Amino acid sequence: MLSGYQIAAFDAAHLEAVQAAIDFKTKPPGSLGRIEQLALQIAGAQGTLKPAADPARLLLFAGDHGMVAEGVSAWPSEVTTQMVANFLAGGAAANVFARANDMAITIIDAGIAGELPDSPQLVRANIAKGTRNAMHEDAMSSAELSAALEFGASLAARAVEDGARVIALGEMGIGNTSSAALLAHAVEGLDLTQLCGPGAGLDAPGVARKAEILKRIAARRPGRLAPNDALAAFGGLEIAGMAGALIGAAARGGIVLVDGFIATAAALCALRARPDAMPYVVFAHRSKEPGHRLLLETLGAEPLVDLDLRLGEGTGALLAFPLLRAACAMLGEMATFASAGVSGKEG
Amino acid sequence: MLSGYQIAAFDAAHLEAVQAAIDFKTKPPGSLGRIEQLALQIAGAQGTLKPAADPARLLLFAGDHGMVAEGVSAWPSEVTTQMVANFLAGGAAANVFARANDMAITIIDAGIAGELPDSPQLVRANIAKGTRNAMHEDAMSSAELSAALEFGASLAARAVEDGARVIALGEMGIGNTSSAALLAHAVEGLDLTQLCGPGAGLDAPGVARKAEILKRIAARRPGRLAPNDALAAFGGLEIAGMAGALIGAAARGGIVLVDGFIATAAALCALRARPDAMPYVVFAHRSKEPGHRLLLETLGAEPLVDLDLRLGEGTGALLAFPLLRAACAMLGEMATFASAGVSGKEG
Repeated sequence: MLSGYQIAAFDAAHLEAVQAAIDFKTKPPGSLGRIEQLALQIAGAQGTLKPAADPARLLLFAGDHGMVAEGVSAWPSEVTTQMVANFLAGGAAANVFARANDMAITIIDAGIAGELPDSPQLVRANIAKGTRNAMHEDAMSSAELSAALEFGASLAARAVEDGARVIALGEMGIGNTSSAALLAHAVEGLDLTQLCGPGAGLDAPGVARKAEILKRIAARRPGRLAPNDALAAFGGLEIAGMAGALIGAAARGGIVLVDGFIATAAALCALRARPDAMPYVVFAHRSKEPGHRLLLETLGAEPLVDLDLRLGEGTGALLAFPLLRAACAMLGEMATFASAGVSGKEG
Repeated sequence: MLSGYQIAAFDAAHLEAVQAAIDFKTKPPGSLGRIEQLALQIAGAQGTLKPAADPARLLLFAGDHGMVAEGVSAWPSEVTTQMVANFLAGGAAANVFARANDMAITIIDAGIAGELPDSPQLVRANIAKGTRNAMHEDAMSSAELSAALEFGASLAARAVEDGARVIALGEMGIGNTSSAALLAHAVEGLDLTQLCGPGAGLDAPGVARKAEILKRIAARRPGRLAPNDALAAFGGLEIAGMAGALIGAAARGGIVLVDGFIATAAALCALRARPDAMPYVVFAHRSKEPGHRLLLETLGAEPLVDLDLRLGEGTGALLAFPLLRAACAMLGEMATFASAGVSGKEG
């Protein structure tokens, strides 16, 4: 996947130097837990002892899903476009959290069905106006998939080249918990019923109905699929965009902050194809959508926070981001035992 | 405890209005999980639909413990004063995280043994230069305890009167995980061995030795004690200061953000005496110190984050604070379905 994007391995000697610098800080070794791990990871990616998390940018990919026609969502497809308009107007949760935490957002029409006027804040992929209905045919052609992957990768790579240190990945797309569940099932063989949750608000009978529909959709392309094949069969354009963006950002040395269930499904596809990107990835949170826990366990990922979120839009990534900022500040600004004149342990 | 500080109950009709406002926002109801609960709590405390978490201030209480002479800590007592000097110089983790998250710090000598020059940033309680050795006598006289409680309460009350919306409580004090364990044991009857952990860095034999010492100290005042009696017997001046600050802040309508094990032990003493303060309290994090989990469960508290921290200094509160800021922004700034023209659920 995206073999033109080469990803550098972290330098082992540098990581040792970073760990030593962390251990000299005025605190018991290891006492800042996950913050120390984050500092090591970000400093490893950036090849420095003074890492930075700012500026940071959320790439917010929106797309529509043909399979919504099968009744998998509690909400009509038109909400995707309406919510993109809400992002552009600055009124959504993602906008509010980005402002609260001093992050930038790029709003991306990765393939929405509705029409929106041009806006300087809106980036358009111009690939398709939503996916086809995966019940009857592949959601995307392989050419569309390649275009979506390349679009996401080049967008993220450019964002890092333009200065972003952290690329957060979030999404909006009615029906995309269904797409994410199908991808996790096809790529990893995880149980569809366990992957299937309420999404944006189905009740229990709705979830059971959704699981039955997803099983029928999955049966069109049974068995384990390679990430590319799974994305073409069941993917969303916004999911392919995020998968590409993960690889593109990592290839430029950017830290990738992955949001919830759908972003993690995109990360799964990207990382199974490109495990060399894993050192650059931070999983922001564990969402309430039940499939997310399963997917994180599969990836061996321990997310930073668990706040019972189930909104998407990158909200979990935006909420977790200050921890990355704090980790960088810890490494860059904290005094050492020697500089502060603090005694060591006894005995 | 501190009966002169009256605490107002939240208004039930106002809480209903806040919940309705949260539910009208452009997101599936409940989909922002803990953030919605935080918004409700802060708006409830402030009696408004446009709550604010800024400005926020960490009250960082430092104190020394006579029982360190018994060998309960891996670090010498002098580190308390050295770390206060580090706070004043801006080089500690607490300083770095406060700067990263735009919070203010008040550094408080609640009763340290060492000498420090005057500084405009240092507030002195002038009660005692550390506690007495609780193995042989009460750590504080009842007059000292009253002074420490009143000092903390008036400091926090003044901070809220001066504009702080959130008062974070953190501490520094070599030996104070021992004091916290003894308090939790005496006030709640929790098992001392389970409450006893490595603190700032004991190894396993050290933890076992610490537990034996704590059992002997506890035996001097056996059985369940009232919060005041427990604080006098085993408390630290910094712990009493935090207990007072919790009540003082709540009495002025401030949100209290409680840090780790020691701050939670202070909160336990305050809340068992003054349960009317509970609605104002947010527990920031679950630390790696094993007693903290037990204490949080006892209080029915679900902390915001779990980052394997075990440093103290208010670091967990400082790291969790942006979630409060985001919660306020969500309620104050997010669009409603009606204002954004977003469709509702189908069916």
